[in-house]
Amino acid sequence: MLAGNILVTGTNRGIGLELVKQLAQNTAEGAHIYACCREAEGTRAEALRALPTQYPGKITVIKLDMSDEDSISAAVHAVSRQIGADGLNLLINNAAVNKPASPAPLSATGKEHMMEVYETNVAGPFILAKMFLPLLQRAAERGSAAKEMGNTMSCRRSAIINISTLISSIEKCPETFPVAQMYPYRTSKAALNMLTRCQAEDFKMHNILVTAIHPGWVRTDMGGEEAPLTTQDSVHGMLNLMSSLSNKDSGKLLDWQGNIIPW
Amino acid sequence: MLAGNILVTGTNRGIGLELVKQLAQNTAEGAHIYACCREAEGTRAEALRALPTQYPGKITVIKLDMSDEDSISAAVHAVSRQIGADGLNLLINNAAVNKPASPAPLSATGKEHMMEVYETNVAGPFILAKMFLPLLQRAAERGSAAKEMGNTMSCRRSAIINISTLISSIEKCPETFPVAQMYPYRTSKAALNMLTRCQAEDFKMHNILVTAIHPGWVRTDMGGEEAPLTTQDSVHGMLNLMSSLSNKDSGKLLDWQGNIIPW
Repeated sequence: MLAGNILVTGTNRGIGLELVKQLAQNTAEGAHIYACCREAEGTRAEALRALPTQYPGKITVIKLDMSDEDSISAAVHAVSRQIGADGLNLLINNAAVNKPASPAPLSATGKEHMMEVYETNVAGPFILAKMFLPLLQRAAERGSAAKEMGNTMSCRRSAIINISTLISSIEKCPETFPVAQMYPYRTSKAALNMLTRCQAEDFKMHNILVTAIHPGWVRTDMGGEEAPLTTQDSVHGMLNLMSSLSNKDSGKLLDWQGNIIPW
Repeated sequence: MLAGNILVTGTNRGIGLELVKQLAQNTAEGAHIYACCREAEGTRAEALRALPTQYPGKITVIKLDMSDEDSISAAVHAVSRQIGADGLNLLINNAAVNKPASPAPLSATGKEHMMEVYETNVAGPFILAKMFLPLLQRAAERGSAAKEMGNTMSCRRSAIINISTLISSIEKCPETFPVAQMYPYRTSKAALNMLTRCQAEDFKMHNILVTAIHPGWVRTDMGGEEAPLTTQDSVHGMLNLMSSLSNKDSGKLLDWQGNIIPW
């Protein structure tokens, strides 16, 4: 069971919203979820804003636009003030965009799509992790528990989970490309996998685990109606998986059931 | 031996400059090299500007800034006017930047570095290939030769070579990260590998070969003085390799000696 201070990005709908719901239901006593969302006040975040009332004292909604460095900085400061000495145990980078909106061929894809998708899907998670590093380190080191844990990494102690995708796999591109070209999304998610592996190397001295997870092909606005997996089942699987991750899983790309996906 | 119309980016120094020299020396009769360079008029391009005099009628210097879409568009139009009906046989995406300039830790790396490096190293090659696609198709289809060649792909017929790097390998990151962190460069080159494999899938129906090549660790401004390989030997190896590439190599990442590098 996951515990402590947990932050999730992109939580107004789909997988992000379901992550917040299931985390609110299934985390240890004293756990707190920071649910980040670009338009926290708008009508598109109504379902999210209803959750703190349903789970009193367990959820804080935070405004966060991953494409805006000032917004990231403001969110990190807001969370830091509330977290205090405990640190951040789990950072889940779920927010992502896909442009052009539908699987588009080369002819309909421009430089602006390449840049905007990379900004939100890679530069955003890069900056967010960099800014949260002191709080992640604090969680990894805190109290007498850290001594007992030694170099054992886990999502209960201190971890970054980057939500990736099967179509981030360069190896599997010949299988997946004919179904969905998505140049900007694919290149951004391959870069996110590299970021994951760099962070895993960089942060292992702090005992911070870093793993990329593919949620499966899920029936969301992004995944479409013909997807075989419900959001509930995907999130249930991913949270089970996160609970079981340890040192050997850091720097890997795993699907929601724990299977390794080749780079 | 390579032949036809060949375009190389980033040719004012290092590997790009040497590619132009050796191509001028070792290509078939009638070959023409379009040598692209960001500051074609400046003092930093003096060595490049001397080459057209040394190899009369064989080289055209073209101004091209890979971070500027208008500059790419202008370069493509200039080349198109000169090439006419023959098409472009070989596009070598060599231009790349690395920011911050020296291998920098996370603390010295900002969002602007992530965005600028991606813009030049990935969005630039993406747009350049997209704009040159009609000319690459023309080269792949032209004349009676195309019929004889069937579906055989080669750098003589029509190809894109994306210059990548060993440290683009996500798989090998644990080996290479301690030597050079370079978050922006690594994530950009992993994305370039994905772009390569997408293009290989997308363009195979046109018989256009797309391969990523690691030039080795070369003694250039970027590689540093302790690098084991001379620019001459690296370029000699890469041009030999390009001459031998065929269908089985499209969508692969190879080193300058032809060895496969894992993604």
